[in-house]
Amino acid sequence: MEIILKRNALSNTLQNINSVVDKSTTKPILSNFVIRTIDGKEKEVEFSSTDYELSLVEIVPAEIKEQGSICVNAKKVFDIVRELQAENVHIKSTEQLWIHIVCGTSETRLPSVEVGLYPQTILEELPQSITINVDDFRHCIDKTLFAAITNESRRNLMGVCLSYNGDQKTRWLSTDGHRLAQMIKTIDALSFDSDKEVIIPRKALTEVRRVAELFGENVNITFDDRVMQFSGGSIMFKTRLIEGKFPNCDPIIPKDSTLEMIVNRERFISSLRIVSSISSEKLRPVKLIISPGSLKLESEKADYGEVIDEIEIDYEGESFEIGFNSKYLLDVLSVLETKNVVLECKNSMSPTIIKSPDDESFLSVIMPLRVEW
Amino acid sequence: MEIILKRNALSNTLQNINSVVDKSTTKPILSNFVIRTIDGKEKEVEFSSTDYELSLVEIVPAEIKEQGSICVNAKKVFDIVRELQAENVHIKSTEQLWIHIVCGTSETRLPSVEVGLYPQTILEELPQSITINVDDFRHCIDKTLFAAITNESRRNLMGVCLSYNGDQKTRWLSTDGHRLAQMIKTIDALSFDSDKEVIIPRKALTEVRRVAELFGENVNITFDDRVMQFSGGSIMFKTRLIEGKFPNCDPIIPKDSTLEMIVNRERFISSLRIVSSISSEKLRPVKLIISPGSLKLESEKADYGEVIDEIEIDYEGESFEIGFNSKYLLDVLSVLETKNVVLECKNSMSPTIIKSPDDESFLSVIMPLRVEW
Repeated sequence: MEIILKRNALSNTLQNINSVVDKSTTKPILSNFVIRTIDGKEKEVEFSSTDYELSLVEIVPAEIKEQGSICVNAKKVFDIVRELQAENVHIKSTEQLWIHIVCGTSETRLPSVEVGLYPQTILEELPQSITINVDDFRHCIDKTLFAAITNESRRNLMGVCLSYNGDQKTRWLSTDGHRLAQMIKTIDALSFDSDKEVIIPRKALTEVRRVAELFGENVNITFDDRVMQFSGGSIMFKTRLIEGKFPNCDPIIPKDSTLEMIVNRERFISSLRIVSSISSEKLRPVKLIISPGSLKLESEKADYGEVIDEIEIDYEGESFEIGFNSKYLLDVLSVLETKNVVLECKNSMSPTIIKSPDDESFLSVIMPLRVEW
Repeated sequence: MEIILKRNALSNTLQNINSVVDKSTTKPILSNFVIRTIDGKEKEVEFSSTDYELSLVEIVPAEIKEQGSICVNAKKVFDIVRELQAENVHIKSTEQLWIHIVCGTSETRLPSVEVGLYPQTILEELPQSITINVDDFRHCIDKTLFAAITNESRRNLMGVCLSYNGDQKTRWLSTDGHRLAQMIKTIDALSFDSDKEVIIPRKALTEVRRVAELFGENVNITFDDRVMQFSGGSIMFKTRLIEGKFPNCDPIIPKDSTLEMIVNRERFISSLRIVSSISSEKLRPVKLIISPGSLKLESEKADYGEVIDEIEIDYEGESFEIGFNSKYLLDVLSVLETKNVVLECKNSMSPTIIKSPDDESFLSVIMPLRVEW
């Protein structure tokens, strides 16, 4: 293989490639990536990498001198290309699996691996599909992924559950057992069985979200029960889906909240930050003392001190107290974009809904915390 | 004590205070800092912190309601103040060593410590002194501190040696045994015994450098054999000096270099970065192959690959090869500011001088490396 690429394009692609590459050293072959020329395409090459779960294929413009393919260490190439200065990068494979990278006056010689040893990513025709605007897609991820579990304790919660509610309405749902986030998104272009439900892993959504602008205007999502593909522009991701059943969250979403308050979002965020700043616990519990027109926030009362703050709110119901992990409140407040937010609950023990005042498409539910101070 | 401060001023000062505060947990008292009102001063208070080696005293404008002093945990106060929003911060001590911090609607209660338990920083009249322009001072630090040792293996090299050469010329010198950096700075305002030589610790220079703009136009440096004070504007540092003798570096600085080459600095940096990018060693050895008009750079030849590059240089002597740790070359090239740099040496085994072409005030010497590839 012999190709010439623009350094900038190469460098950007390698950054994407590198973030998919497996960083663990248990499977050395996965520290590599593949460049291959495509039959019948004279002006572009295909870069691909995989960690078995998630694969990335990116098409990059290139001048092709000789068809072929190479498989080479991703980090080494990335570290070198990052330092290159000249405009064009010339990549050539020679006998005995050596790769030459020439750029300006510099010349690099790197060992490579038999392409056949690297797991190949095969794009499939899949039965279910959604075509979604890239900005909408970003929203659906941002407003749900934060509530998915981050550790391995419950694999079926390590992602976002996508299902179809009928009426062109997709449902994006995540939970870690203490809170949930739900986004309902109307999508015109879909072919989605209504009994279908898939769990998209966190890593896939994180990576896809990170480079979403490369998809262009729309992302085409296709899937079956095992795998999902995201494609658009010059880029395509393929991920395995999480096996297992997503819990039924409907009973947790309260339907009979009687207490409703409206709080200025930024004021609420700043107040939570102040009050939780003193806590040494990771989730920073905080007590909300609610009375007509007023929300008082109190940190734990501890030997190392305590903080209180008070916000004016729009509330006319009975006075009550309720505790939360302030991290959970801050997570959802930071993905909302409206001036005010609504909190709805029944009493100090009930799950609490947090949402925007005039937007039914998104809601989050947080379980309260028993606070004893 | 009861005082009112501007939040911004408080926040900035706490950042400085916090970077001096001892982060280790072995001496809990040193995790605190002190605020005290000053007799006869109605509009300012004094903040101070120390880790026994380095102390900081900063004067901050304040409205004083009641004279006094407090000693309180630096990190806790910093974490809280960082989140505050209102313009004024009201700090008040109450009975039983509780501190109240009120800002806008928020109120914090923190435990404090007897001020008497905290080591007090006493400013002294010291016999030796230098008054140096802040920009010049920054230069003297930047151009020497990089070559000082960073580990504890040789305490007398963990800083910059300051001495007086006569003729208003101060000498700033550092070495880690593999390289040295020397800055000669002419200073008009000094009172410095010519046989005097002090070693200023790395931490002091790093902190003083970081906040140098707070000194105003000039820094006043006073010292004896034990301690050094840096003052100017509203801020004062006091540091213990490193005990011990700084090695005599004069014999290491070559006087009889016969080979001299001129290299474009940025080109040299970029070339070193490319060639060293592949190395897995921390100091990234590189070989320079010098011939008339040409500098070739070669990485190690290793199983994981190799990189070479070539630069046009101004050189007319005999051809030779010499090895260096590329990190040492990059360190000195990055503190030089001229378009070109000069390398001077005698042969492939001799210490090499690196400096700017028309500036005798600074030089660095790097020991070569035996490269066997």
